[in-house]
Formats: sequence, C-alpha cells, structure tokens
Amino acid sequence: MNHLLSTRDLSVDEIVQLLELADHMAEINSRAVPKVPALRGKTIASVFFEDSTRTRLSFETAAKRLSAEVMTFSASTSSVNKGESLRDTIETLTAMGVHAFVVRHKSSGVPKQVTQWTNAAVVNAGDGWHQHPTQAMLDAYTITRNFGDKESMAGRTIAIVGDIKHSRVARSNVDVFTRMGATVVLVAPDALLPSSIEGWNVTTASSIDEVVGHVDVLYMLRMQRERMDESLVISMKEYTDLYALTQDRAARLAPHALLMHPGPINRGVEMQVDPSEVPGSRILQQVANGISVRMAVLFSLLGGEISPAITLGGDA
Amino acid sequence: MNHLLSTRDLSVDEIVQLLELADHMAEINSRAVPKVPALRGKTIASVFFEDSTRTRLSFETAAKRLSAEVMTFSASTSSVNKGESLRDTIETLTAMGVHAFVVRHKSSGVPKQVTQWTNAAVVNAGDGWHQHPTQAMLDAYTITRNFGDKESMAGRTIAIVGDIKHSRVARSNVDVFTRMGATVVLVAPDALLPSSIEGWNVTTASSIDEVVGHVDVLYMLRMQRERMDESLVISMKEYTDLYALTQDRAARLAPHALLMHPGPINRGVEMQVDPSEVPGSRILQQVANGISVRMAVLFSLLGGEISPAITLGGDA
Amino acid sequence: MNHLLSTRDLSVDEIVQLLELADHMAEINSRAVPKVPALRGKTIASVFFEDSTRTRLSFETAAKRLSAEVMTFSASTSSVNKGESLRDTIETLTAMGVHAFVVRHKSSGVPKQVTQWTNAAVVNAGDGWHQHPTQAMLDAYTITRNFGDKESMAGRTIAIVGDIKHSRVARSNVDVFTRMGATVVLVAPDALLPSSIEGWNVTTASSIDEVVGHVDVLYMLRMQRERMDESLVISMKEYTDLYALTQDRAARLAPHALLMHPGPINRGVEMQVDPSEVPGSRILQQVANGISVRMAVLFSLLGGEISPAITLGGDA
Repeated sequence: MNHLLSTRDLSVDEIVQLLELADHMAEINSRAVPKVPALRGKTIASVFFEDSTRTRLSFETAAKRLSAEVMTFSASTSSVNKGESLRDTIETLTAMGVHAFVVRHKSSGVPKQVTQWTNAAVVNAGDGWHQHPTQAMLDAYTITRNFGDKESMAGRTIAIVGDIKHSRVARSNVDVFTRMGATVVLVAPDALLPSSIEGWNVTTASSIDEVVGHVDVLYMLRMQRERMDESLVISMKEYTDLYALTQDRAARLAPHALLMHPGPINRGVEMQVDPSEVPGSRILQQVANGISVRMAVLFSLLGGEISPAITLGGDA
Repeated sequence: MNHLLSTRDLSVDEIVQLLELADHMAEINSRAVPKVPALRGKTIASVFFEDSTRTRLSFETAAKRLSAEVMTFSASTSSVNKGESLRDTIETLTAMGVHAFVVRHKSSGVPKQVTQWTNAAVVNAGDGWHQHPTQAMLDAYTITRNFGDKESMAGRTIAIVGDIKHSRVARSNVDVFTRMGATVVLVAPDALLPSSIEGWNVTTASSIDEVVGHVDVLYMLRMQRERMDESLVISMKEYTDLYALTQDRAARLAPHALLMHPGPINRGVEMQVDPSEVPGSRILQQVANGISVRMAVLFSLLGGEISPAITLGGDA
Repeated sequence: MNHLLSTRDLSVDEIVQLLELADHMAEINSRAVPKVPALRGKTIASVFFEDSTRTRLSFETAAKRLSAEVMTFSASTSSVNKGESLRDTIETLTAMGVHAFVVRHKSSGVPKQVTQWTNAAVVNAGDGWHQHPTQAMLDAYTITRNFGDKESMAGRTIAIVGDIKHSRVARSNVDVFTRMGATVVLVAPDALLPSSIEGWNVTTASSIDEVVGHVDVLYMLRMQRERMDESLVISMKEYTDLYALTQDRAARLAPHALLMHPGPINRGVEMQVDPSEVPGSRILQQVANGISVRMAVLFSLLGGEISPAITLGGDA
C-alpha cells in the first residue's frame, strides 16, 4: 500500500488485515501511556483545504501516538487558492521532509492529483462527494468488533439514511459494507439519491420507518442545512417527517442494533433524539475507533511491517 | 480536586497547598531543561471560544513542561457556534482520549456545563464575567512570594482599580485575596462596580489618588475601549483622570508596593506610565508565575500526588 | 552571534562557518530519525505578523529537529495590531521562557526593535523590503554546494530578475553574493529598481535575454500581481515579454547553470516554464537546504558551540 485514496484500492483481505492491525493500535490506546516509537523520524503533514477540526485532530492524534512529527498546513490561513500553487505547496512540503500527506479537499480527485507531485504517501481524508476511506474503515471496525465477526458482515442489514447523493461517507461505506457481505439499504428521498446507483449492490427505501425495526445497523448521515436552503430537496418538515431519527423510531430499533453517525451530528435535524439515550449508539465509539484505525493506516503506509516495538509493547 | 471552575471550589488550605506545589514547578522552570515526565501519556485540550493567545500559550506551555500532549481546539476556525454542538465537541474530544479540558468562553457557566459531558477534568480559563481561577492563583502566588508569607495576606491592603463590573479577574481575586486575609479596596466609578457587592468583604474608593500612597498592592485592570465607546461609563477623559496610573501616581507608591496587571496592558488608557519604569512592577513576574501555577493546577487534577519524578528532579 | 537581523551582521568568514555548520545539519537531516537533542529545553517562538506558512514551517521544522519546543504565535488570530502592544507581546512571551524569537513583519526594522524588549535571540524572518537573512544563507548554501567551492563565489555570475525594488530577498542576496565574490546583475525595469543602488557593487540589464545565456545562476524573484494592478510598473504583457522565464529562455541556460527562486512561484507570471522540466532547477533543493541552514542559525544563536551530540551523531 503506497496511498489510501479510495476504499476501492483495498481488497476485502486487505481491509480485514488493516482492521486487525487496528486491534493492536486499540491495545496501545488503552495503555496509561498510549504512545509507541513506531514512526519516529517520520513527518506527517495534514493539509486540509476544507475545515474539519475533528478529522484533522483524529489523524494528528494518531500520528503523535506513533511518535511521528506532525506538520499542520492550514489551507485557510495560507495563500493557497489556485490549483497551480497546490502543486507547489505539495512539492515544497515534500522538500521539507514530509513522509505522508493527509489531504482533505472539497473537490473530488485532489488527493489522487497530489500523488503525482510527491513521493510521499497520500491519505484521502475526504474529497468532495467522492471518498472518505478512513471513515469507512473505522465504521467497518466498529461494526465488526461489535458483532464479533472480524472478517465479514454477512447476514447483517445496514441502512444508510440521509443525503446519499452528496455524501463521500455513503460512497465509501457502501463499497466496504457490501464487499464485506452486508445487505445495504439506502434510505433517502429521490432528490438525495445519486442519479445512478447501478452497480452499487444496494436496495432503497423511502422512509426510515420501513427499515428501523429490522436493521442491524442504522447509519444516519449528517443533513446539511445548506442543501435545504438551496431547495434542492424537499422541505425540512418533509425531510424530518420521513428521515429523522426521533425518540419513537429509536425505540423501535432491535435490542442488538447499532446506531451510528459520522459526525458532527446535526441535532434537531436528522437527529431528533439525544443519542446518549439510545442504548445501541456507537457514535462516540466510532470516534475512539477512528484513532486506532488511522494509526493502522499511517503505520501501514509508513512502517512497512508490524514493528517489534508494537508487538512487544515497548513505549516511546 | 476533579475540576477547577471557581476559586470558591478551593479552601484556603487547598489554595496554600496549590501554591506550594507551584514552588516545585518554579524550581523545574529554572532548570536548563524545564521539563518533567509527570503527565506523560495525558492529553490536555485547550478549547478557547474566545481568543486569548497569551492564556492559551501559558496553559499549553505548562502542559508541555509536564510532558502532556497538547491538543489545540480553536473554536474560531471550527464550526462550533451553537450551544448544542458544544456538547458534541466535548464528547468527541473526550472519545479521542482527552484527560483535561482548559475552557474559555464568553458566557459564564460554560466550563461547569462542560463537566456534565465528560469524565475528563475541566479547568476554567475564564468564563464571561464570572471567574478566572488560575489568574487568581497566579496573582496570589505573586503576592505571597513577594511578601514572604506563603500562607496569608493578613495585614496587606490591595486596591483593585478599573472595570470591576465586567471583570472575572476581579471576582476571582477578591474572593482569594479576602479569604487569605487581605484588605481589598475596589477603585472604580459607580457605573463599573457590580450592582451589588454585598458579601464581598471589601471597601470602595472613588479615585486612585485616595489609595495609591498606602496600598501594598496596586492591581490595575484592563479597561476595554469598547466599554467607553458604548458610553456605558464616564468619558475616557474622566476615567483616566480618576483611574489611570500616571507617572506621578506611580511615584507615590510605597517603596515596597507591588504594581500588578493581568494583561494585556492597555497603554495610554489605564496604564499611562511605562510599567518597566515602575520598580514595584511585577507584571512580567505574573506571566512567569502563571506557567508554574498552571503546571500545579494541571498536575493536581491529573497527577493525583507529587510524583518522584518531580521531587527527585528527574527530567523528561 | 546574539541575533540574526541582517546579512550585514555577518562577516564572510562567519557566513562560511555558518554554511559549514549547515553541512552537519544536512547530514542529520539525511538520517532515518532526523533529530538531535542539541536544543533540548529551549523554546523558540515564531511570531509572524505577515502570513508565510512555508517560512514558518521551515523554521519550526528546524527547531523541532534540534529538539527545541516550538511556540507558534499567530499575529493574525491574536489581538496584536498596535505598535505599543507588540512590545507587550514580546515581553510576555519572554516571561513565559522563550529563548529565541523568529519574527516576520511587513515593516522594516521590527526585528531590530524586538531586540530592545527581550534578552532572547531574535532572527529576522523577513521585514518589509529590508532583509531576509536566512533566505540569503540558504541561497548561498545552495550555490556554493552546487559549485563545489564552499568558501567563495568568485568567478560566478548571478542574475537576479524581477522586482528588486520591493524585495528583501534581493537586498539580502546582493549583499551576500557580492561579498562572497560573485558578479551580480540585476535584471528589472527601471520602475522596479531601487531609487539608488549606489554601493551595491552590481550591474544592471534591461531584459532577461541579455543575461540568460551566460549566467551561472538565474535567480528569479516572485512578481506580485498586486504591483501590476497598482500600475506601479509596466504592463503585465511588457513585464513578461522582457522578464519572465519562458521555455525558450530556459533552453538557453548553460548546462551547468542553476535556476533558483525563493518561492512561492507565480506560475504564468515570472515563471512561464514548469521548473521541474528545467534540468538546472534547484528550487526544491533551496527548500530542503532552508531547513539545514535554519537549524545552523538556531543552533548558533542558542547552542553556543558544536555539541558532541551532533558531531558524534547521537539522536534525540
């Protein structure tokens, strides 16, 4: 693995291996001093052209726990605005000794472009509507570790609810969940479904009520208020009538079912119940797992193999 | 001690102990390598919803000198604007492994709210007009160490001059100084006194000239130009006539008297003399003491007891 | 050396020594773990009043590789706007334990002012049109290491092309290049030459075509589009006709000639060829050398002498 640009770069076997590596990282994270020297001497640059404090902090925490140096390149405070200088930025940071770039951009395909300008590893931390592969990895980790079958989601039904069309999280998760054997149902108004879902290997439903009682995982997406304002979709009232998670609906989840959300939650919109009062909620577990999974990704890209320092439990 | 939200959370004995711990920290800070491993493996998040570079850097420096990891969450560049998502931010950062939050917010009570959403320790780094407890601790440290009685301010007269009404520094300091035995005089126009100071155990004066010649400590507050503009108070000219520290007034300070200010100084407003030319100025000493006191606070919250690494002088 | 404010502070011998120290730093940077404990316990504050992510990251990376603590003071997010509070900022950071300030400011002379307010070392990271001494050091390092004579540029011809008038890079480089023995030609329209270049020991040329075929180094400056807009100079078309590096012109460079640029490149303005296709381009090497040279500068200012940890190759 040289880069992680898309979940499609990984076979199911590779995904399973990555999640197993994340188990090791989770063990490190449970220690009193959650830090190992695995990536000492490596520099990881987070280059975010779209604000996402939580994703950036998750990656940076992961990097630090592996003893990498972190370089934060905040695109909003720098003078990078034009495509031409993005290349110069990447080349310059590479010349400064960066070993891996963690890139977020509002345009699909930018992380892949970045790979042409550097010999460093590139991790896609979300690009446009395209992909957010570490989100899918941490979601797969959360689901498989909760259900106890680490290699498959066969027999599980996962509903993904909300704005599928504009969601890189949905695209990444559909790919991983279906290839790992899950039955995936997309729950969205037509206006928020992609123009074509041919080849996605999913079914659809037109309200949350159709699925809530019999899914193993209810995966809620963030509804962007901006999209509502754009009148691209149905009205807020119609949307929440059919697609929001209310207390009543949450009560109809099976006892073993998981409630998940990539964050940040839009309370009062798609989430009309306090998730901390839903027993199946794994939303904060997703956040914690994100650190472990991102440690696994960075380590795989930069470490090459499982280091004795990790398996033997040495600390930094 | 689980949190430090208000000076009122601490008994005088606890304050005295904290300041004694700060003496140990000051000794560490005097070393060639001012760093100890005391909080290795701990993560401290600074979450500032109101800009204050100096207070943030003071806490972060304190954390690093104890070998804690620092996570800077800058609210101004993040998408946190609504009360509802503050909770999600805190829960998310907690899930990432934060052990202590250092919180500043323009609304009184926010740090206390934060304690409901996390099992991490919470330090109030200034909330609205309410409290700024570490400022009071560092001021108490500065006063007691200068006067040589580490356990009491009995017999000392401290004048606090300026906008008492809108000042969390004043509220915190009045509480600590009076409980440690000092006589406190508030010097402010009526419009800048709180509507009630019942129970504050202070006296008042209506010009700096009334007090400057016989105080042990002259504590100047920052005058916000904005308040002037709002015409909430008397005119700038009236204010500086009665409440600014001029060269003449500074010359009337007793030889042993201390000049203090929480910073940042508003030169030409409340401070019309160059403090570096006032022999009794301890304003920069307050800054240096701030590091030691905040190290003591973070260590007390996260370390539990004085570690051998500190008492034995080992470095990180 | 207490400060590095201007290239003029350094004799040629001192420059040569500094570049030799940079050779040691380059060796460190080539290691698997490019970090030494040389400046452990020191705190270096970057105080940038003008955004320059690349220069700031270069200095901060240099500081971290020497194991110094880095404190980033971003003037744009702080409340420093007035000259009077700049002093308080410097005094406050000094009281927090800063050992060296790296200062960038849009006004010439600010770094020198800063030296009056602190006993810490001060490095000028670019002030107005005045000086950018570490840029000149890294450029001299790049030139001397490429040509193999570490102590002199005698016999070399260096053309500096572009907006000389407003360029601190040009001022610093002219000083260092000429004192090291190079023949320097300034290539610019009259409007972009300083009003007087008396004492600069340079010649001038009025188009890039006059020089491109026989220089050893072609040093392109960044052309600020803003200056064009201000109509301070000739039109964009005239400028690029006479002063831009096109593919044709690049092809006329001697095989041994170096192409240099301080960055960030303004593609389509002064740089109309892709520099990665110019064999003599050392633009990214300049960036890499910048880390080594800044390590040498910080170490000289704070370390005093070459530490055994560096010469013996110990890592941090």
